[in-house]
Amino acid sequence: MEKRTAYCGEITEKFIGQEVILHGWVQKRRDLGGLIFVDLRDREGIVQVVFNPEFSLSALQVAESIRSEFVITVKGKVAARDESVINTKIATGKVEIVASEVTILNRSKTPPFYIEDGVNVSDELRLKYRYLDLRRPEMAETFKMRHTVTRVFRETLNKQGFYDIETPYLTKSTPEGARDYLVPSRVYPGSFYALPQSPQILKQLLMTAGFDKYYQIVRCFRDEDLRGDRQPEFTQVDLETSFLSKEEIQAITEEMLVNVVQEAKGIKVQTPFQRMTYHEAMARFGSDKPDVRFGLELVMISDIVRDVPFKVFTSAIEAGGVVKAINAKQAADKYSRKEIDALGEFVGTYGAKGLAWLKVEENELKGPIAKFFDEAKQVELRAALGAEAGDLLLFAADSESVVAASLGALRVKLGKELELIDESELAFLWVTDWPLFEYDEDANRYVSAHHPFTLPRAEDIPLLEEKPEKAMAEAYDIVLNGYEIGGGSLRIYQKEVQQKMFRALGFTDESAEEQFGFLMDALDYGTPPHGGIALGLDRIVMILAGKTNLRDTIAFPKTGSAVDPLTNAPGEVSLAQLDELGLNIQEKE
Amino acid sequence: MEKRTAYCGEITEKFIGQEVILHGWVQKRRDLGGLIFVDLRDREGIVQVVFNPEFSLSALQVAESIRSEFVITVKGKVAARDESVINTKIATGKVEIVASEVTILNRSKTPPFYIEDGVNVSDELRLKYRYLDLRRPEMAETFKMRHTVTRVFRETLNKQGFYDIETPYLTKSTPEGARDYLVPSRVYPGSFYALPQSPQILKQLLMTAGFDKYYQIVRCFRDEDLRGDRQPEFTQVDLETSFLSKEEIQAITEEMLVNVVQEAKGIKVQTPFQRMTYHEAMARFGSDKPDVRFGLELVMISDIVRDVPFKVFTSAIEAGGVVKAINAKQAADKYSRKEIDALGEFVGTYGAKGLAWLKVEENELKGPIAKFFDEAKQVELRAALGAEAGDLLLFAADSESVVAASLGALRVKLGKELELIDESELAFLWVTDWPLFEYDEDANRYVSAHHPFTLPRAEDIPLLEEKPEKAMAEAYDIVLNGYEIGGGSLRIYQKEVQQKMFRALGFTDESAEEQFGFLMDALDYGTPPHGGIALGLDRIVMILAGKTNLRDTIAFPKTGSAVDPLTNAPGEVSLAQLDELGLNIQEKE
Repeated sequence: MEKRTAYCGEITEKFIGQEVILHGWVQKRRDLGGLIFVDLRDREGIVQVVFNPEFSLSALQVAESIRSEFVITVKGKVAARDESVINTKIATGKVEIVASEVTILNRSKTPPFYIEDGVNVSDELRLKYRYLDLRRPEMAETFKMRHTVTRVFRETLNKQGFYDIETPYLTKSTPEGARDYLVPSRVYPGSFYALPQSPQILKQLLMTAGFDKYYQIVRCFRDEDLRGDRQPEFTQVDLETSFLSKEEIQAITEEMLVNVVQEAKGIKVQTPFQRMTYHEAMARFGSDKPDVRFGLELVMISDIVRDVPFKVFTSAIEAGGVVKAINAKQAADKYSRKEIDALGEFVGTYGAKGLAWLKVEENELKGPIAKFFDEAKQVELRAALGAEAGDLLLFAADSESVVAASLGALRVKLGKELELIDESELAFLWVTDWPLFEYDEDANRYVSAHHPFTLPRAEDIPLLEEKPEKAMAEAYDIVLNGYEIGGGSLRIYQKEVQQKMFRALGFTDESAEEQFGFLMDALDYGTPPHGGIALGLDRIVMILAGKTNLRDTIAFPKTGSAVDPLTNAPGEVSLAQLDELGLNIQEKE
Repeated sequence: MEKRTAYCGEITEKFIGQEVILHGWVQKRRDLGGLIFVDLRDREGIVQVVFNPEFSLSALQVAESIRSEFVITVKGKVAARDESVINTKIATGKVEIVASEVTILNRSKTPPFYIEDGVNVSDELRLKYRYLDLRRPEMAETFKMRHTVTRVFRETLNKQGFYDIETPYLTKSTPEGARDYLVPSRVYPGSFYALPQSPQILKQLLMTAGFDKYYQIVRCFRDEDLRGDRQPEFTQVDLETSFLSKEEIQAITEEMLVNVVQEAKGIKVQTPFQRMTYHEAMARFGSDKPDVRFGLELVMISDIVRDVPFKVFTSAIEAGGVVKAINAKQAADKYSRKEIDALGEFVGTYGAKGLAWLKVEENELKGPIAKFFDEAKQVELRAALGAEAGDLLLFAADSESVVAASLGALRVKLGKELELIDESELAFLWVTDWPLFEYDEDANRYVSAHHPFTLPRAEDIPLLEEKPEKAMAEAYDIVLNGYEIGGGSLRIYQKEVQQKMFRALGFTDESAEEQFGFLMDALDYGTPPHGGIALGLDRIVMILAGKTNLRDTIAFPKTGSAVDPLTNAPGEVSLAQLDELGLNIQEKE
């Protein structure tokens, strides 16, 4: 096979007059006036090849048998296209290759779908023929970008003195966190490894070992029921450092992300990134990962409506809840009563029992609850919400968490519908000062808001025993355009603090020792103060590539039921394999 | 915490007079004449800190409570050491830090073994306290080198236009190759994923997808009984390209390895690497991965001894076997009769029924079999083996494979014992022209010498049906100092060839379709000619770091029974977990 001289997508005017050799796939063949035109595609783009009997009859004859997706080698001379047939949509649109030789390297059946962007085909079919789906230019672009993103993360960390250190995938199942994928042991039948949900403890032990700065771009596994944006395996940019402050770790993270955005998108992002406490984010945006590209903030109006005679408001407040509102500027005309009712149903899925509303007119407020507001209250409300004629005011009254969830989701929905979001903007945000625990109603105990190794604020350590719900964590999440793209924290490095943490989580000292004894041991042997962060690579690529589904950023993803339609994994295995592992499959009931 | 100004190991004379802040671990504390000396260690090395009451009494008082492996922060001024106490063994040996402040960041119990190189401690204990073991300077060095090696592999491939693309770890179990690690599915109880033994098929599908140049530094898994140099999970530098020749893929591989050796060891390796066919390697060295740093080659002497009246030789030849010899130059005096008998036992483990020998003297050959050689035969033998007075000649007579295995192993043993090996040399070697199949006596069928996707030599494709044992592969392995460090090949890209291959391996078309249908499909849709290679990262690091065990190159390795003594993986899991997976553990008999 002759050596390629360039990629198809690279052939621009500067090649005119040169002989080139290209390898690629036939995007399209057209026969026109005794000539054959072939659009030849490789990972870098498409170029037009023309077979002209006056130039090479033998090449033309071969070209006659060419079909879509055949793999061919073409030798030819680069020529300028006639002005009249210049294609301004592609980089190679001003030239064409006049073929002197062509070889068919491999044939193709007619693909089950067109190899082009935006083609309407089921996800199942795309995944079954993933090797065809990946040929589409937008997929090729995404994986080129993913490569760049990965490379720049690494280069930044390499320059900063981080060591790339691998941790095992066959590790131990731990009870905290999500459900583990298990791997049966053959040497010890009845025993199991677990695939890691993250290398959290092991990277902490690398700090105990003195490596000082660790990173790894590492696969992690969670056997959860999949939602649209979850996959059973996902990739984390995982780092850990010793002796650094939260602010220093955040600065390293910002440097990585700035470099990544610069190289992947050509955009210069300003640092330091915006910062906001968890409580502020929840109060203003009803979300711990707010999209700060637009306003529509939540405004607390409990004090204003406390004595308004509308029972929904007053009873919520009396029950310890709150009343909040958002002002959809100039949206009064955009939502009919029926459409507003639909918004009410929407917030219902977040627990709200209803959505009160008012439309603002020049001199009055209109809507079902207007009658409850006397003139003084109307003035007060207008002032609090900055309301002007044409605005739509939307109210939720419930517990603080239901109001936050409902109006937070409504805010995002309205932001999209009202086109308030600048899609070209990349709004990074640090969310800081997290609570250490959440109360898990099902388990009837406190669980870690992040993980059990998160350092409590020094002054809150006594709270671990008395009022865990009040304890704050040295944790920081990073948010991009409303997606959580990473979470980090300083870690516990003193044994007595870790013990208190496990106790607060409901472990006995014995059960903590049994599950986490090796970590507790390590804390006995000179573990330095340390902390780190883990970033979700798939999601970062998804946002930068302008995709809305993680599957489009993963070469061979799984479906919502964790199946790979390409290989048909998972599949059956032989009884001999099961016997070696000492396992039986349970009879179905 | 104050910010570190430098690593301990970096403090050389150019820092004299500067104030520095260091974080590190106490290697050793000595009290001497009212002063306290602390060797402070971090990942970059060790520096001496002196606590002098005249300089800071409070620091000295803190230092009094310091013990080995405490984590401390020291602030102090860098001073030149007195000539008399300069330590020429370490980079920081001409200076010391005169401490003005010290803070104990964390304490340590007395470690279970000394944190120093060459310490005599069981592997089990080292692995249980791996975070301490990794503090030893030689371990820190190895992982720094591993980081460099990984980085340079990536940088070279990035520059060459390769995309780093991730493939799934939850994939499908295939019957060819080693034993899979299985992962039970919860969504489909009774179904299993498999952890990949390599991303072989998926990387080929990435070629079908048109990515052109793929690489990944990727974990692979084999559930085999472990030998000293095997681990259940290992790391591969895995690459695949389209449209390139064997020679082009070899050149890319050489460029990577040259760059890696240059940056990791500062050694410039010459290219192109030496090349040798499989048959030549077996004939001359009795090994498909010969260490070519020394001679002691095997010499075929069947023709010479055919009519020598020594039954061991003649009957081996009559049975279709061979007689070969190696000449251990000037080793006659170094091996007593008893020691030669021990060599005989050694080759016995490789199947040889004995080891005949002769010592060469000025005018005669001496030894038990000398009497079978008349003068003419002695002359012939001396000439064939280049024998001179003082040489020791060693003979094996058996089937070709037993002779190769026996003398090949003996050659390596003698090479070490006779100190013929320049340990500083890095001898890379391509072994080419491999047979496509090996006959598996147990399975009573042909199995792939490499894997079922290896391209046969074009002219040998008809042999697949008739004489598979004669078919040669477009395969190339790379060897370093007698270790196979990688294997590559061109791959089958035409469906009919892949079908013939599966038939030759004993698959029916139906069973091939069932197991590899997705690959067969892909071959129907324009798969380009492609090929690649996979290099064993752990082993490359092992050789470059001068280690002899893979465990020393892996941060958290497993023992010979695939156990991690640190985390105690594998471990028991709950019945609830098993129920979710629809599995029962078999009762022990």
